[in-house]
Amino acid sequence: MSQLIALARCGICARSALAPVAAHQRAGALLVAGGTAVSRRLCGVRWLSRHGVRKIGRGDGVCTGLLVGGAVLVGVTAAGFGLSRQRAVMAAERWRGGTERDQLARDEMLQKCKHFMSDPVTDIDQLLENKENMRTKMELLIMDVQADVCKALAEVDGSQTFKVDRWHRKEGGGGISCVLQDSKVFEKAGVNVSVVFGNLSEEAAKQMRSRGKSLKTKDGQLPFCAMGVSSVIHPKNPHIPTIHFNYRYFEIEEADGHKSWWFGGGTDLTPTYLNKDDAVHFHKTLKEVCDKHDKSYYPTFKKWCDDYFVIKHRGERRGVGGIFFDDLNSPSAEGLFEFVRSCAKAVVPCYIPIVWKHLHDSYTAEEKAWQQLRRGRYVEFNLVYDRGTKFGLATPGSRIESILMSLPLTARWEYMHNPAKGTREAEIMNVLRNPKDWVH
Amino acid sequence: MSQLIALARCGICARSALAPVAAHQRAGALLVAGGTAVSRRLCGVRWLSRHGVRKIGRGDGVCTGLLVGGAVLVGVTAAGFGLSRQRAVMAAERWRGGTERDQLARDEMLQKCKHFMSDPVTDIDQLLENKENMRTKMELLIMDVQADVCKALAEVDGSQTFKVDRWHRKEGGGGISCVLQDSKVFEKAGVNVSVVFGNLSEEAAKQMRSRGKSLKTKDGQLPFCAMGVSSVIHPKNPHIPTIHFNYRYFEIEEADGHKSWWFGGGTDLTPTYLNKDDAVHFHKTLKEVCDKHDKSYYPTFKKWCDDYFVIKHRGERRGVGGIFFDDLNSPSAEGLFEFVRSCAKAVVPCYIPIVWKHLHDSYTAEEKAWQQLRRGRYVEFNLVYDRGTKFGLATPGSRIESILMSLPLTARWEYMHNPAKGTREAEIMNVLRNPKDWVH
Repeated sequence: MSQLIALARCGICARSALAPVAAHQRAGALLVAGGTAVSRRLCGVRWLSRHGVRKIGRGDGVCTGLLVGGAVLVGVTAAGFGLSRQRAVMAAERWRGGTERDQLARDEMLQKCKHFMSDPVTDIDQLLENKENMRTKMELLIMDVQADVCKALAEVDGSQTFKVDRWHRKEGGGGISCVLQDSKVFEKAGVNVSVVFGNLSEEAAKQMRSRGKSLKTKDGQLPFCAMGVSSVIHPKNPHIPTIHFNYRYFEIEEADGHKSWWFGGGTDLTPTYLNKDDAVHFHKTLKEVCDKHDKSYYPTFKKWCDDYFVIKHRGERRGVGGIFFDDLNSPSAEGLFEFVRSCAKAVVPCYIPIVWKHLHDSYTAEEKAWQQLRRGRYVEFNLVYDRGTKFGLATPGSRIESILMSLPLTARWEYMHNPAKGTREAEIMNVLRNPKDWVH
Repeated sequence: MSQLIALARCGICARSALAPVAAHQRAGALLVAGGTAVSRRLCGVRWLSRHGVRKIGRGDGVCTGLLVGGAVLVGVTAAGFGLSRQRAVMAAERWRGGTERDQLARDEMLQKCKHFMSDPVTDIDQLLENKENMRTKMELLIMDVQADVCKALAEVDGSQTFKVDRWHRKEGGGGISCVLQDSKVFEKAGVNVSVVFGNLSEEAAKQMRSRGKSLKTKDGQLPFCAMGVSSVIHPKNPHIPTIHFNYRYFEIEEADGHKSWWFGGGTDLTPTYLNKDDAVHFHKTLKEVCDKHDKSYYPTFKKWCDDYFVIKHRGERRGVGGIFFDDLNSPSAEGLFEFVRSCAKAVVPCYIPIVWKHLHDSYTAEEKAWQQLRRGRYVEFNLVYDRGTKFGLATPGSRIESILMSLPLTARWEYMHNPAKGTREAEIMNVLRNPKDWVH
């Protein structure tokens, strides 16, 4: 499965592996047959195709097509995909000239942006000037992940394109919200990018302090920069689970000039009914991503997720978990960025196969009603406990529609609803009360 | 209108004025014709009757029937209802004997309890032993109001009886939850009584402190007693507004032995569409109740209500307001109890006429959808801001089903829903953003 994750982005033209071949060709790339067959996807991931095998498992996703880039070639990770190393070196040589290199960097950036759902929040020239800066790298990553996920969802859905809203925050920064609402497959699918900066409010700073950060403000001010991609996907079919993911990067500057930064994030699954294969696929995909970076990550962040997504007043978890982490600032920013990148790029292979798998599952009115009750619990968690929501609501100038996009289109609360023993509703409740180990 | 409020309880047998005549008769009372006609309601309030005039206005509710009580006679407020003062004095004479008086008091208490939806939370003997205590008086009041409201709602609905759940809190106390769910008229109608005591949690004590109370705990403990009646009624028809009311009494004992007490409460209306006549009726009824106690109450508590029921992140109020007050502890406990009693007994005349008025209003799918979106905002207020909900969720042993009974059966969140100018949806939004004066 790890191969699939690595393949989620085309190594040649930097487009999503899920983008149609034509898109890669439009990007100036040249198609060359390689291996035994040319897939309709550049980098394979055949099981993601509507027309291909939808079985979830290892080894189904293989790279069967090759591209050799032209001017827009990125090629950094090309070797892993079967590209001749010599060609990659040749292409890289062309960038080494001064002005030409700048021009190439600009072209490369513009090419990347074509994949995005909208221009980045930050001006492209500013991003180019600071292209080694972590803020720039993170902003490009979250834009890229937003595009990957939106395109994969739109492909599954087939009925609508995402509504894309760029928004500006007068206090500093802004964001891009992409929403698919009441479409064929999705009740509500939102993928948000936000890049905000300025001064933290007293209330928002308190939200941080409650997480163990002791922050020294100057005249009650705390300069900060926060950016992230966050998403909640609520499908209509109760046999397709809800997914949530969020990857974020923070920087703050305290009164004494001390700068702090940290990463946070996670991906978690909320099924209406338990499907063990789905839970195993989801967790194994995450474990493989984590293991590549640090063997301690998956068990630590899996537990953190189980402990975080708790609806305390109900004594139950929101779903079957996944991974969750916050305040990560060691061993290095670069290492953590690579970890966050891997996690964020794993969203599509974690989730989209599950959507395809259950796309045509039939369901009853009772199953739909149970989904609606679980949606109610989702609302309870998000409004009562979720730190991201609380932080958003407490940050002046936040775009409320983007923050509360995570709420489902519809939800239900029935007084004293208790599933009968032995039912599938009771089965999932048992898992929500007693989190399981899905990978051993 | 003030007369109607005073009439909401029968002055003779202490049953609700809305209880059928037969119930008053079962209570041992004797029906005597008085005035020009015998109403089917003891104390008139004819406009509340399904068969009578449903026009909202002064003078429609008149006391046309009289009862002279037997053993269970309460009669304290009888004079105001046309009962011969002499008979009242005679009846009162009979209670002056020692043991007989005790027995009468017991009978009276038992008789009161018959009107209730369930036995009081506190043992009846204990209530009798402390019958002059404010805790006892308040418990009997909230039980009585619960019964009044439930019976009036059940009468309007006509299809279902309330589900009555008694619950026990192992840390001390308990409650009675009465719920009508998915009935003919109501999506969800809940009327809760709770009487809880023990030690406040750190979190719950913080909720109090945030309201300006500085409380001295002893080893982190703060003995408390909290009781109240609270209710949210969500009708199905979008032309019938949602009502919320809550009347409560608190006692705490600080580390230095200092005892504090206070009352809080309020009644507010949340229409889906604006109906000015309804808003005026609702506010005028509340104003008349308040004015009887203190002319400053209505303007003060109306503003408090407008300031409290704000969905801050949306910049809008939850509804058209009403009254709200908290931490009231002067001039006297007795005076405030009488004020709270008046307010609580005004719920039925504030609201039930509005329900009757719109009972058969037709509505479109679009109007229903708008109601569902407003339900979503109701959920946002309750889960993000409402102190009662926060206090409940933070109090160990709370009955979550009773606290979250306030949430609607169904709710909806649409991304970027903005009513077009000139629509009825825009009209109510304008009022929610700019609260109005409804009584001048």
